Amino acid sequence: MVTKNQIKLVKSLQQKKYRSQHKLFVVEGKKAVLELIGAGLEPFKLFVDTKIWNEGFKGFEQVASSELKQMSSLSSPNGVLGVFHIPVVEPIEDSDWVVALDDIRDPGNLGTIIRLCDWFGINHLVCSLNTVDCYNPKVLQATMGSIARVNVVYTDLEKYLEESAQPVYGAFMDGEAVYGKELPKSGVLVMGNEANGISSGIESIISERIAIPQFGENTTESLNVATATAILLNEMKRKG
Amino acid sequence: MVTKNQIKLVKSLQQKKYRSQHKLFVVEGKKAVLELIGAGLEPFKLFVDTKIWNEGFKGFEQVASSELKQMSSLSSPNGVLGVFHIPVVEPIEDSDWVVALDDIRDPGNLGTIIRLCDWFGINHLVCSLNTVDCYNPKVLQATMGSIARVNVVYTDLEKYLEESAQPVYGAFMDGEAVYGKELPKSGVLVMGNEANGISSGIESIISERIAIPQFGENTTESLNVATATAILLNEMKRKG
Repeated sequence: MVTKNQIKLVKSLQQKKYRSQHKLFVVEGKKAVLELIGAGLEPFKLFVDTKIWNEGFKGFEQVASSELKQMSSLSSPNGVLGVFHIPVVEPIEDSDWVVALDDIRDPGNLGTIIRLCDWFGINHLVCSLNTVDCYNPKVLQATMGSIARVNVVYTDLEKYLEESAQPVYGAFMDGEAVYGKELPKSGVLVMGNEANGISSGIESIISERIAIPQFGENTTESLNVATATAILLNEMKRKG
Repeated sequence: MVTKNQIKLVKSLQQKKYRSQHKLFVVEGKKAVLELIGAGLEPFKLFVDTKIWNEGFKGFEQVASSELKQMSSLSSPNGVLGVFHIPVVEPIEDSDWVVALDDIRDPGNLGTIIRLCDWFGINHLVCSLNTVDCYNPKVLQATMGSIARVNVVYTDLEKYLEESAQPVYGAFMDGEAVYGKELPKSGVLVMGNEANGISSGIESIISERIAIPQFGENTTESLNVATATAILLNEMKRKG
């Protein structure tokens, strides 16, 4: 039996304030929940709709559809909801490339970037304090299980970059074409905000301004930040 | 004055059936509307909220916020709404790379892919008949003005590929690493459905199976189709 207080707690975790307070976050969907368990994240509570329960849901608590609906952030809940402990943030290791985000606001973009880091073996993602929270339900929807394998650190980005001993690369529309550039085995790649790009405070710390060459009529304003990150990480890794 | 019938017409264009019937589509937002006009698309009707009207809106019809709200597909309309004629589909030219989509369902993915085609100078995008409609409001939100510069053709994809004289490349998880491959100056790049990848009927026509190498722990299931398209188009073009 799920109690009213538990429902209230789960629901509150839709807000960042309560996620930080309780150090818990919610993931919905059988596949995502099982992937996080498989990746070693520690579940706090696992719920499954009685209607779809079967032997495969060991350790899950059965709840009524109506209860699940109250806890869910989805308009049509999909039968499985897991509450997990937010993992402890690890120290940033800069022996490989590190991705740094300067105020990324769109949850889908952050989710896609976390998934890209996972694909390209980037273990550490540094986010400015104004970047959207990585345990936001919409971010988690786009990361799939990658959130369990990438260490996401929220910090004063300017301070982090100033103190970093690594070369700092930044993506700019008017940067140098990345194709011809020699790239080191490790460094920091800074990606800027969707509307404003990299902020001027951060820009002054960047040692190498890079760009993805444009082949069209020079009319497309810019690439979406997640697709630009995809292309640049591919460039870093294919040369590595 | 906007009439009730006009409001009804604009509203109906949220559905593909009526867009096809009237050969009209809707774009919202000043920037997007002006970009489409600038790109040479033919406006049918342009509306602006009386509250934000100024001299810059020549040729726009002033409407009340309440009328705009009735026409808009957004929960908070942004003051500008343009109705455009759907451009005539051009014949596909295969002297450069052509991108072909096998049942892409997510509007955001299609929008991002259209924007990528524009960036990389790919003029023709061939979509299977089950691919989401490119004049869907959510697609347009992600394409920005690129929809005016990319010729999007819906057709029987299997037939198109069978009749194409170009080499047909397809993205597969177990394909050959794209980094080492010599790539021609032109060809067709097929990208598959978000959940099921490239369908078996299409798979049998593909001459080259390619993949983006994975650097992580080999646990990320796959890249999102839009980010994978970004990386592969970059590979085609950097070598070209």
